[in-house]
Amino acid sequence: MRPRIHILTLAVEDLESSLSFYRSLGLESPGIIGTEFAGDEENAAGAIVTFQLEHGLVLALYPRSELAKDAKVALPSPSSGSFSIGHAVKSREDVDSMLDAAEAAGATVTVKAYDRAFGVYSGYFRDPDGHLWEILWNPALEEI
Amino acid sequence: MRPRIHILTLAVEDLESSLSFYRSLGLESPGIIGTEFAGDEENAAGAIVTFQLEHGLVLALYPRSELAKDAKVALPSPSSGSFSIGHAVKSREDVDSMLDAAEAAGATVTVKAYDRAFGVYSGYFRDPDGHLWEILWNPALEEI
Repeated sequence: MRPRIHILTLAVEDLESSLSFYRSLGLESPGIIGTEFAGDEENAAGAIVTFQLEHGLVLALYPRSELAKDAKVALPSPSSGSFSIGHAVKSREDVDSMLDAAEAAGATVTVKAYDRAFGVYSGYFRDPDGHLWEILWNPALEEI
Repeated sequence: MRPRIHILTLAVEDLESSLSFYRSLGLESPGIIGTEFAGDEENAAGAIVTFQLEHGLVLALYPRSELAKDAKVALPSPSSGSFSIGHAVKSREDVDSMLDAAEAAGATVTVKAYDRAFGVYSGYFRDPDGHLWEILWNPALEEI
């Protein structure tokens, strides 16, 4: 496997509301695309939201029901915190203000930022579907 | 929020075995680091595995128990399929062989690759902790 991830797809309950949440955080998207593929009981519908991130990575939002059909797995429960997305910022103040902004947009801050033993200042929020984001400042990172 | 993800952290049951799994897929890692931070009932231990991916993204493996402590959330259940990681390859044959390789390494292929209505040939596997990977060939992607 080449060491590359191209897409990170988050399963969501409702495309519209999750799109609104991420737009209110400042991410830009053309909106819901792929609606021409209706899907059925067996086949996943195509409607999806994508955000083009830096360095070629795509963050996608896709209904839980459709991801389950696409991957042929049982309908997953809402995200239980089995992964987290790390987003680095340039200062402690930026960590705090990003967490505040996420909360204002409808996220739940699970822990306000604090200093970890290993030198990172970070806190976490859950998006409306339970997906965990860690907002972090790591002074050891030379470039962010 | 700047449109950038720096780290994707997968919660795992056992660092050693998940490290072995991803190494056997061809990802390179210096191994478990951060063991000097022991943690305790309240504070997350530092032991973690990282894989440096292309374009500055880091894929990390971190025990479920420690991610729960770090994010101050309840211990998550093993991954239920609430997200998936998309890995694009250059041909149909590469999709099939990657899925075979994952299975040989201990993954569970949930669905062999097939053609989707929207023009993508892909299949999925679950890693030993249940995390979903979609291996895909998308002829519309100009560069992979």
